[in-house]
Amino acid sequence: MTELQVNGERLWASLEAMAQIGPGVAGGNRRLALTDEDKAGRDLFVAWAREAGCAVTVDAVGNIFVRRAGSRADAPPVMSGSHLDTQPTGGRYDGVFGVLAALEVVRTLNDHGVTTQRPVEVAVWTNEEGSRYQPAMNGSGVFAGAMALQAAYDQVDADGLRFGDELERIGYRGEAPCRVFPIHAYIETHIEQGPVLEAEGSAIGVVTGIQGIKWFKGALRGFNAHAGTTPMEVRRDPLVGAGRMLDAIDRTTRRLRPDAVATVGEFAVSPGSINVINEEVRFSLDLRCPEDAALLTLEEKVRVACGEIAEDMGLELSLEEIWHSPATAFSPQVVEAVEQGATAMGYSARRMVSGAGHDAKYMADICPTGMIFIPCRDGVSHNEAEHIEPEQAEAGANVLLQAMVHLAGQ
Amino acid sequence: MTELQVNGERLWASLEAMAQIGPGVAGGNRRLALTDEDKAGRDLFVAWAREAGCAVTVDAVGNIFVRRAGSRADAPPVMSGSHLDTQPTGGRYDGVFGVLAALEVVRTLNDHGVTTQRPVEVAVWTNEEGSRYQPAMNGSGVFAGAMALQAAYDQVDADGLRFGDELERIGYRGEAPCRVFPIHAYIETHIEQGPVLEAEGSAIGVVTGIQGIKWFKGALRGFNAHAGTTPMEVRRDPLVGAGRMLDAIDRTTRRLRPDAVATVGEFAVSPGSINVINEEVRFSLDLRCPEDAALLTLEEKVRVACGEIAEDMGLELSLEEIWHSPATAFSPQVVEAVEQGATAMGYSARRMVSGAGHDAKYMADICPTGMIFIPCRDGVSHNEAEHIEPEQAEAGANVLLQAMVHLAGQ
Repeated sequence: MTELQVNGERLWASLEAMAQIGPGVAGGNRRLALTDEDKAGRDLFVAWAREAGCAVTVDAVGNIFVRRAGSRADAPPVMSGSHLDTQPTGGRYDGVFGVLAALEVVRTLNDHGVTTQRPVEVAVWTNEEGSRYQPAMNGSGVFAGAMALQAAYDQVDADGLRFGDELERIGYRGEAPCRVFPIHAYIETHIEQGPVLEAEGSAIGVVTGIQGIKWFKGALRGFNAHAGTTPMEVRRDPLVGAGRMLDAIDRTTRRLRPDAVATVGEFAVSPGSINVINEEVRFSLDLRCPEDAALLTLEEKVRVACGEIAEDMGLELSLEEIWHSPATAFSPQVVEAVEQGATAMGYSARRMVSGAGHDAKYMADICPTGMIFIPCRDGVSHNEAEHIEPEQAEAGANVLLQAMVHLAGQ
Repeated sequence: MTELQVNGERLWASLEAMAQIGPGVAGGNRRLALTDEDKAGRDLFVAWAREAGCAVTVDAVGNIFVRRAGSRADAPPVMSGSHLDTQPTGGRYDGVFGVLAALEVVRTLNDHGVTTQRPVEVAVWTNEEGSRYQPAMNGSGVFAGAMALQAAYDQVDADGLRFGDELERIGYRGEAPCRVFPIHAYIETHIEQGPVLEAEGSAIGVVTGIQGIKWFKGALRGFNAHAGTTPMEVRRDPLVGAGRMLDAIDRTTRRLRPDAVATVGEFAVSPGSINVINEEVRFSLDLRCPEDAALLTLEEKVRVACGEIAEDMGLELSLEEIWHSPATAFSPQVVEAVEQGATAMGYSARRMVSGAGHDAKYMADICPTGMIFIPCRDGVSHNEAEHIEPEQAEAGANVLLQAMVHLAGQ
């Protein structure tokens, strides 16, 4: 372990400076991918990277790679990064903290004139949020070969503006090909975006993987009838059926394991008139679990429970899978490097699985990968109220420094 | 009881002829209040009434009264009627059947040269449906003194057209004042708009009153959070809470009494995004019961059940009453006249309470009132698929004939 520590004040000042670009309306940020604000944020980061003496490369999808040379010039780098784009009413730290923590590692190594064996590299991935262009995580997705470059270029925003044109316009369609190159390890630091660390009083989340996710679209059909003249015993009310399903999904998930989650987010009835028994309910279902086998078990139990309710009530249920992202297990070596870094610094830490997707999801397909979480207030994210304390940011960056130096070798 | 019987074929032919005016797109009708179609329907009816030798009066709100004189010129009439306007995608029989069954009674009395003691009068009430102008039942409401004439005139439709202007335009702003006059009894025949008579194989519903109705607007607030990163045990998901309330409302209502009904028709979530735990659910609640005391008990039990769920789950519930229409008990004398009419004709009959509102609701405030229901296929109404059989219409009109002759005296 290294004796080095990051400069917490400098890290915080950088976070504050970046937050001035694309300010939101309530203290957060609006810096949508490939807008003028995104360009300004990238420009500031690139200027800082050049000041830090790093080589800057931009690839064809706009990913920015900032390399601090190691003593073994041909050795694959130890990389860390995240994204600078935000949600439309986003916070100051989601993504940005991961980029600037990595930059702070580079600056700290500079401060102390440390030369690592392997290069240390900072990555800024394009369009992680997916707010302006869907799907999300284009930069890491194209880099890891999970998505075609042309498909990313051809994405169109709500105003009909092409991703490729906007990338060109802001000057970040780089010369370098967007394709995987050898990487020794990838570590991403990020705010938790959930309430667990704060509730437990842990400073560091040692992330062991990313949950498996399945998304479904459901429809439940009953029989539309008059609210006043249809006795309860002859009704086939899909909203009452959906109500029972919501309860059953909640109970089934809680019973299965404490780390499984189920959410119905979209929910609409038709015809939706005050004195009419509805004909149909349409809803989404988001199931997540750290283990794929348990995720399949959860799906099966939910299908059985909902199927029984539909049959009992004479309702017609369909539940169609629309997306499946299998669980990702991070590299044991990287996870251990993170855990040892937290221990060395004396921070309270707990292992946990990420409930959300991150660029690290794609990186785990191509190199040994891990993540470091820090708490955020009330677990709030994707919201301008997103908040962390300077010492929380400093702790996360210190653990990253420990892990990167360990993996890069001194 | 009279030996007379209506002419079922003539009644059916009249129903068919009226259905030609303002045809719908799927076999039903679109004859919205105070449109050209409503005017055409009224004109046809008035022509038939004049052919039947009746005096025609139109009042200031457009109600049409058609009187067949009795032997006691000064005696208050026995009245029957309903409405000719329809829903936007309405059926052929809702309202129309009640008007034309009453006309068929007049025609039958003419056929046989019968003179009743009291006059027999047919009423067509303006804007019963409330589809174009809200509130509904203006014609009977103003007549019975429950609504001001000027308030009816000042109603505006979705295109900004005033009720008063449209009434004038179609030529049905009559000379007669719109105010109550002495009426011996009022009987309205109507399709059931529910499935009970058909399911039980009963030809006639002897309606003893109209249910009490309470409408509420509900809101349930929880805490908006990330679907992936928020463990089940810390969630405050208002949609899951609403699901439990839907189930509790359903069970509470079924347990209370078999003739109570509860319906949640409007239901909307926000923000309603696939990977976000919702912040709020807004919904309507429609409670109905034939007895006011039981309706209040139902409301209280629903409030307690929903309040407990909200408290258990850390949700904030509001449930605001927006409308209360107390239960109406019809006149025992009129109910008995209807029941005896059904018995005399040998029709299977059952007493029942109307789940829906009708012009008879207002008439019950000012004179002895009753209703006669006939079955409709699958209980479907407010739908172009609304359907009855000719013999069902004939049975309803025959019971009306019996009851009116009995009440008018021969």
